[in-house]
Amino acid sequence: MTANEVNASEKQSFDLVITNVHIATMDNAIDSQYGTILNAALGILNGKIAWCGSAADFPEFDSLQTPVINAKGKWITPSLIDCHTHIVCAGNRANEFEMRLNGASYQEIAAQGGGIISTVKATREADHEGLFVTAKDRLNALLNEGVTTVEIKSGYGLDLENEIKMLEVAEQLNQHHPIDVQKTFLGAHALPPEYKDDADSYIALVCDEMMPKVAELKLADAVDAFCEGVGFSNEQTRRVFDAAKKYDLSVKLHAEQLSNLKGAELVAEYNGLSADHIEFLDESGVVAMAKANTVAVLLPGAFYFLRETQLPPIDLLRKHKVAMAIATDFNPGTSPICSVQLMLNMACTLFRLTPAESLAGVTVNAAKALGLTDRGVIRVGLNADFALWDIDSPAQLSYQYGVNPLKGLWKDGQQLK
Amino acid sequence: MTANEVNASEKQSFDLVITNVHIATMDNAIDSQYGTILNAALGILNGKIAWCGSAADFPEFDSLQTPVINAKGKWITPSLIDCHTHIVCAGNRANEFEMRLNGASYQEIAAQGGGIISTVKATREADHEGLFVTAKDRLNALLNEGVTTVEIKSGYGLDLENEIKMLEVAEQLNQHHPIDVQKTFLGAHALPPEYKDDADSYIALVCDEMMPKVAELKLADAVDAFCEGVGFSNEQTRRVFDAAKKYDLSVKLHAEQLSNLKGAELVAEYNGLSADHIEFLDESGVVAMAKANTVAVLLPGAFYFLRETQLPPIDLLRKHKVAMAIATDFNPGTSPICSVQLMLNMACTLFRLTPAESLAGVTVNAAKALGLTDRGVIRVGLNADFALWDIDSPAQLSYQYGVNPLKGLWKDGQQLK
Ligand SMILES: [Zn+2]
Ligand SMILES: [Zn+2]
Repeated sequence: MTANEVNASEKQSFDLVITNVHIATMDNAIDSQYGTILNAALGILNGKIAWCGSAADFPEFDSLQTPVINAKGKWITPSLIDCHTHIVCAGNRANEFEMRLNGASYQEIAAQGGGIISTVKATREADHEGLFVTAKDRLNALLNEGVTTVEIKSGYGLDLENEIKMLEVAEQLNQHHPIDVQKTFLGAHALPPEYKDDADSYIALVCDEMMPKVAELKLADAVDAFCEGVGFSNEQTRRVFDAAKKYDLSVKLHAEQLSNLKGAELVAEYNGLSADHIEFLDESGVVAMAKANTVAVLLPGAFYFLRETQLPPIDLLRKHKVAMAIATDFNPGTSPICSVQLMLNMACTLFRLTPAESLAGVTVNAAKALGLTDRGVIRVGLNADFALWDIDSPAQLSYQYGVNPLKGLWKDGQQLK
Repeated sequence: MTANEVNASEKQSFDLVITNVHIATMDNAIDSQYGTILNAALGILNGKIAWCGSAADFPEFDSLQTPVINAKGKWITPSLIDCHTHIVCAGNRANEFEMRLNGASYQEIAAQGGGIISTVKATREADHEGLFVTAKDRLNALLNEGVTTVEIKSGYGLDLENEIKMLEVAEQLNQHHPIDVQKTFLGAHALPPEYKDDADSYIALVCDEMMPKVAELKLADAVDAFCEGVGFSNEQTRRVFDAAKKYDLSVKLHAEQLSNLKGAELVAEYNGLSADHIEFLDESGVVAMAKANTVAVLLPGAFYFLRETQLPPIDLLRKHKVAMAIATDFNPGTSPICSVQLMLNMACTLFRLTPAESLAGVTVNAAKALGLTDRGVIRVGLNADFALWDIDSPAQLSYQYGVNPLKGLWKDGQQLK
């Protein structure tokens, strides 16, 4: 073996190298803000992050055979994750929105067929193809903003056939769209008209008929419910969680949005992934979440659109070190806003999160809210899911909105943008 | 002359025909909402709207020689107008945004060089090319949303050379970007550091040196000022307006944003184009504006970003039939949000405008706020500036956000998108 051959064998292999870049790794082993590495380089191999650190320390590699991108001082972050959406749905509620602004009462709107039931009706009437096409447009809008993982919930079917249909469409999107889709079964989202005044029977349907089928078809990564005065009670939610446990499915919860039904403590009791909305969460709920490692998913789009005034207890979440994620909650009724970049700004502007907390909310903590340990951070061994931004500092992602600074997007090492 | 020749000569000529379309003309001669014509057709000739009405009545034309678009039930509206922006500027204030959210006081931020003066400093240091490039990115973002006319203000130069530079960049954008740019001289935007504690002398500079030069070089279509406790007094604003009058320039005003200095009455006294912000406007100001036909320009982005709570007096504006426009107020300090589509939603969500009022605010009333009578409405004889949208109803433009429904955009009959 000659000296040259030794050197050659010591060279590290990469499929792609990015140099002259600053990296907000979001790895709090580096720092508790952005996990920043200035003047960094990144090496990708087999869809994983193979090297990440100061460019000065970058290992020898075959620079003739390896594609190298000179990022000219741009920034890399983990690609973004939207961990709470309802983007598979049919119809829109523009008519209801307009009626309300023209002074119609809720009764008048309901009489015209408005409210969540109008979305249920439209979603039941839609076929797979129709649901796929509108959801794909939304995924494309998110991809264009740097998003590569999206959670999608069922919950507008509210019967066996249509809940399955929604989850099948979510799985089709997972397979036919570059974005990774995580599927959540939300049968206990609202009471369907045919079960009016009989919520317990509907919960039985959810637990005894829908859940087994969803589990059998492997159509859900997790189970969610809407625990609220206008949704389901704490006790009904517990029945849903017990059923989920039987099928070994993780749970999460729409909790404490409009009142405090102690939903966060309930989901924490089941070691749930997340409690979402949580405007009315109190300290005992926060403590329970902290103990169970349950993520707080903040949804500023719904807060904005509903003109809520009760802020989620951000200081308590900080005090007890509960991880905070941020998501769009895209849905036609209470958050018809399909933009994670706007949520970064709204989380700061409306909830007073810092820009570092905001960015963690759509990367590392959003991954945690989905139970995903292979993404959300730029770290050797994790998926090469990352975005390249034309910004001077990561705070700019939260501060400004409208001119998209995304200059490149990779998922599993493949460039999507 | 044969019968055929008679028929041929009776055929109307068009450069473009769009059929199978619904049109929100925004012409209140048709109806007081959207001026809707269902199942319509549109004929374009020489950059103007040559025919607009029910498709059933469309005249004979040479269908072999004329391009025809079948819009398949989509909607046309006038293309959008952003009538109040500060998009020519340098630097960004992400650092200040982040400091504030990390708990820094205004004094600490000022000590770090934050506030409007940081934008003035960066803008003075920037050259034409640098200002052009960042502003062009913003115009492109607006164009992508269906905007074809944008007003741009000076006001970060605050000396002769740099105010001229900003207006020259605005004119370069007008010439080299497909969007029409209206230029506003806003020398009286803030007090430059070199005139600290001597606002009257600075106003003299604005009136006696800057204004004559701006007028001589024909670099402004209008003159604006910031009449506010933290800006200039009513009396100083009057001096600026008197100077504008001397040079036959229209006036408008940043008025009643944080307090009531009777700026709206002042601008109305000068038959001004618009009073902008106007959260603290009272009824006597509204009445004065109504008499003078002065437009109320509402800026929900700044209201949102500053977390204001005082709403502009929408009901009084309605009562006295003051036209309401909506704009982004894009600027790095108080509205770093470059999206007219988002302003449509914010005007409804935050200010409770109806979707029809919102859309009028970025079309017909925005044109009026700029003194432009050739656009903002789909009407025969006006500029063929229009947008094609994939929506079920015009309310959808205000209701939803994030998935851009724009499917085509024309300016002076030329397709831009
Ligand atoms: Zn939700
Ligand atoms: Zn302004």
